[in-house]
Amino acid sequence: MITRSKQLRLRIIPLGGQEEVGRNMTVFEYGNDIVILDMGIQFPEEDMPGIDYIIPNISYLKGKEKNIRAVIFTHGHLDHIGATPILLPKLGYPKIIGRDLTIALIKKRMEDCEPGSAKNLETMIIKSVDEQIKLGNFRIGFFNVEHSVMDAIGAIINTEQGMVIHPGDWIMEKNPVDQTPITYNHLSKLPSPKILMLESLGATEINSSNIPEKEMYINLEKLISTAKGKVIIGTFSSQIRRIGHIIKYAAHIGKKVALDGYSMKLNVEIAEGLGYIKYAKKTLISIKDIHKYPETKLVIICTGAQGEGNAVLSRIINDDHKFIKVHKNDTIIFSSSVIPGNERTIQRLKDNLYRKCDNVIHSDIMDVHISGHSNANDIKKIIKQIQPDFFLPVYANHFLLKEAAKLAIETGISKEKIFVLDNGSIIEFYNGLATILNKKAETNYIMVDGLGVGDVGEIVLRDRQVLSKDGMFVVIAIIDKQTGKVRSSPDIISRGFVYLNLKESKNLLKETRKRVIAIVNRAVGSPGAANWVYIKNELRNKIGEFLFYRTRRRPIVLPVIIEV
Amino acid sequence: MITRSKQLRLRIIPLGGQEEVGRNMTVFEYGNDIVILDMGIQFPEEDMPGIDYIIPNISYLKGKEKNIRAVIFTHGHLDHIGATPILLPKLGYPKIIGRDLTIALIKKRMEDCEPGSAKNLETMIIKSVDEQIKLGNFRIGFFNVEHSVMDAIGAIINTEQGMVIHPGDWIMEKNPVDQTPITYNHLSKLPSPKILMLESLGATEINSSNIPEKEMYINLEKLISTAKGKVIIGTFSSQIRRIGHIIKYAAHIGKKVALDGYSMKLNVEIAEGLGYIKYAKKTLISIKDIHKYPETKLVIICTGAQGEGNAVLSRIINDDHKFIKVHKNDTIIFSSSVIPGNERTIQRLKDNLYRKCDNVIHSDIMDVHISGHSNANDIKKIIKQIQPDFFLPVYANHFLLKEAAKLAIETGISKEKIFVLDNGSIIEFYNGLATILNKKAETNYIMVDGLGVGDVGEIVLRDRQVLSKDGMFVVIAIIDKQTGKVRSSPDIISRGFVYLNLKESKNLLKETRKRVIAIVNRAVGSPGAANWVYIKNELRNKIGEFLFYRTRRRPIVLPVIIEV
Repeated sequence: MITRSKQLRLRIIPLGGQEEVGRNMTVFEYGNDIVILDMGIQFPEEDMPGIDYIIPNISYLKGKEKNIRAVIFTHGHLDHIGATPILLPKLGYPKIIGRDLTIALIKKRMEDCEPGSAKNLETMIIKSVDEQIKLGNFRIGFFNVEHSVMDAIGAIINTEQGMVIHPGDWIMEKNPVDQTPITYNHLSKLPSPKILMLESLGATEINSSNIPEKEMYINLEKLISTAKGKVIIGTFSSQIRRIGHIIKYAAHIGKKVALDGYSMKLNVEIAEGLGYIKYAKKTLISIKDIHKYPETKLVIICTGAQGEGNAVLSRIINDDHKFIKVHKNDTIIFSSSVIPGNERTIQRLKDNLYRKCDNVIHSDIMDVHISGHSNANDIKKIIKQIQPDFFLPVYANHFLLKEAAKLAIETGISKEKIFVLDNGSIIEFYNGLATILNKKAETNYIMVDGLGVGDVGEIVLRDRQVLSKDGMFVVIAIIDKQTGKVRSSPDIISRGFVYLNLKESKNLLKETRKRVIAIVNRAVGSPGAANWVYIKNELRNKIGEFLFYRTRRRPIVLPVIIEV
Repeated sequence: MITRSKQLRLRIIPLGGQEEVGRNMTVFEYGNDIVILDMGIQFPEEDMPGIDYIIPNISYLKGKEKNIRAVIFTHGHLDHIGATPILLPKLGYPKIIGRDLTIALIKKRMEDCEPGSAKNLETMIIKSVDEQIKLGNFRIGFFNVEHSVMDAIGAIINTEQGMVIHPGDWIMEKNPVDQTPITYNHLSKLPSPKILMLESLGATEINSSNIPEKEMYINLEKLISTAKGKVIIGTFSSQIRRIGHIIKYAAHIGKKVALDGYSMKLNVEIAEGLGYIKYAKKTLISIKDIHKYPETKLVIICTGAQGEGNAVLSRIINDDHKFIKVHKNDTIIFSSSVIPGNERTIQRLKDNLYRKCDNVIHSDIMDVHISGHSNANDIKKIIKQIQPDFFLPVYANHFLLKEAAKLAIETGISKEKIFVLDNGSIIEFYNGLATILNKKAETNYIMVDGLGVGDVGEIVLRDRQVLSKDGMFVVIAIIDKQTGKVRSSPDIISRGFVYLNLKESKNLLKETRKRVIAIVNRAVGSPGAANWVYIKNELRNKIGEFLFYRTRRRPIVLPVIIEV
């Protein structure tokens, strides 16, 4: 007996996340129903100067907006919710589904980008993992996962072609504080075919292993209780449970806590409002009031542990912070990991902190942070617990997905049941078979720069790269209509090329002016005279060559010719 | 009895190396004698676009050129020899001293930068570590060290005020192949005061430990012998011993080796010429000839494992390599570490290699590389072996030097005998006492960009940074002398700001032109008319504000006013 819906095909399309396949957004399409998982942003690569962030390309959804039943959010990190202010309006504000902290963080994100926009949201709060939601022909279920932000949840996307199990970002915490350890064995009892989409960022972490949360807290507590001065803890503002734990412990030993950093304060406020963290009101003090307490009674929790230029830690170091001054006997703790790409910035941050303070503690010298991601052993363990029929590693670079595939094979999954997708890959499940379609969804980068979404493309980026390397060189020649000759000395404007006040630079400019006059006068006097396009090209090429010959630099040369 | 030289003071000044104190150059001054240790370059930070590299600032040596007795080189890496083509001529070509491979690499570096310049070198080859060289009032001795390039040597800089022991870069290899392990116990017998200047890059590497060299070779040999296709090994061109070992092993099992990459080929040639590596001539084949051999008989050793845009591995991936095509069953080995700052580039390189090849091997999944630097345990061990009176950790970020100081304290060195220097710090040894002077040597960055040495300063760099973020915007207004009004529509040139072909951009330009006309006409008509400086400022500010308001971007606005 084949029901109508049984004839539908299930399609899964990871969209966005740059190298990290599917990290920012995944589309599930089943007949005329679409469900989206997450809607996040990615931070730009080094070769994208000036770009604020990158959002998923939603061309695939064009014309299908009415089919979108909902957007489900696994957790509240920016790489999973950050694109909502731009994409939800474009898609006609489909319903959004998530746990209450996640939804609260989305609202905050919307309001930050455009005040008043959160009122457009149609929200549905997941109150219990036992809830089942019907969205068109989809049935959606949930399961608990552990991650570095509270309220993370896994989704079960149930169709008659397959049962997708997607934990989002996850960690296998062996010895969690304040809660029972999570296992995934119960998911093995879901009906086949079970399709496991698994975040596999830790696929090559073979030897490293996360220490138990408890051990990290013991280290932090010891540092806080034995500190000889004030304690400054830099961490991610999304580490809400950790922040809550520190506040509670500080209260317990009679210390005061000041939070600093916009998102830090707001996140704690949101979590407190929802009852996720609890503390006596008098424990939290304003950063303005820290001078009223002895240093030994102070714990400051702040942002900026990645070395972000304008965040709290950087301002402290540069003596730009109005209220916080670091002393030699303070204790500064980096309770955070290094985001790839920030290595050198963080090294510099540490250098400067070590200059001001004798007790700087970071993961290299003590376990004061736990990563939010699992390692190779955990990946094997979760696969064994869930026993999926299909395995789709996601949320990591291609090479890590391939390594995760190897781990899955080690657990006994057969090679033919493992699919390593790219962003834009369309995988179709039908009658127990999986096929990657030949066509792909569009995934070229949609870059956001200031108010512009997608208006900075390849050309603008390339210009920025060239400008950043060797600067620019504008040559302005005024040509007399009557004589056809250059009038007076050509103007030159240069930026980022050479330091103009040096004697050599002055000589270079003088010679360049001579050449400009010669090039223009020769060209104007020749057949095809007053062919401005030709003359401009001549100037661009010849002056460019001359500058390169003299400096080995290639500024962008921009000729301006004005006929008067 | 106080001899004349006993009254001299010994000064040590680490110069150059950016955050890594002293890495590129160290100056030793003793009365009227100066000896320099190394003369290297550092690669630029992310916020130095277009800069090729940075050389040590030698202002301190100005006027003292005649006192320089020699430059001693510990080994042939670029961060220790790279600045010779620029600095040796400036200092009047002082004598250079090093082992023969090091001197050969310096000659090559000189010739690469300026053909024919190596003939100016006055060289002295260290033939044995037992040599003693008298340089003015200095006596120089040597000792063996192990590092990732052959011919590394440690220097003993002997004065009557102290005996500086400086291994340069070093690793404590427990089980070296083809040679006896190096220990430093004999240095403890040198007369006091012994001053140990120690490269301390691994000061926070507490748990990690280098595997023995032997184990790495076993892994590499197994991969090479069992490969189902050709083997491509990416490594640093300075890993001469490793390259030599691979060639020997390949010959042993009947495979051919092709080298690719300019510096790779040249380094092997130099090392072979000096007798450092030996192989049957028929083992090495030209990369052009690889098609003549079965794939299973081929080992290719090449550069580019850091993802450098134009190096061999990148060209292979982009199908830009004339001779090498990668197949699924090839084996690609990264026998190299990740240089901080290159993380994301290398991740992308791996992604692309995994797409083309099923067997990509790197340190995350197998020990196919050994670092050239020691860890925390080795640092403690060498201190215990040498038993210095003073400890000066160097060659690493400030925070690592502070951590190395802690390790030294653990070995029993007293805190007062440990000095953490900065670049430019001048430490003076006299009568058994050490003092850091209040004055410092100049160390601001000397950046090299193309042919320019030091002509790119703060201003040019800042312009490049701004240009790279939001581009530039040139406004050209022609003003009629008679009427004082703007003639026709102002020209606008913009690069790296917005994509001009979009409709919104066209509207933006149209509105900008209107504003330019209004601003100029208003200003020209007002008191202080024809004050071009004022009008230009008005344009720069008002148009800048307008563009920011409309785009949230801040291009460099450059107004040009031409009166006709």
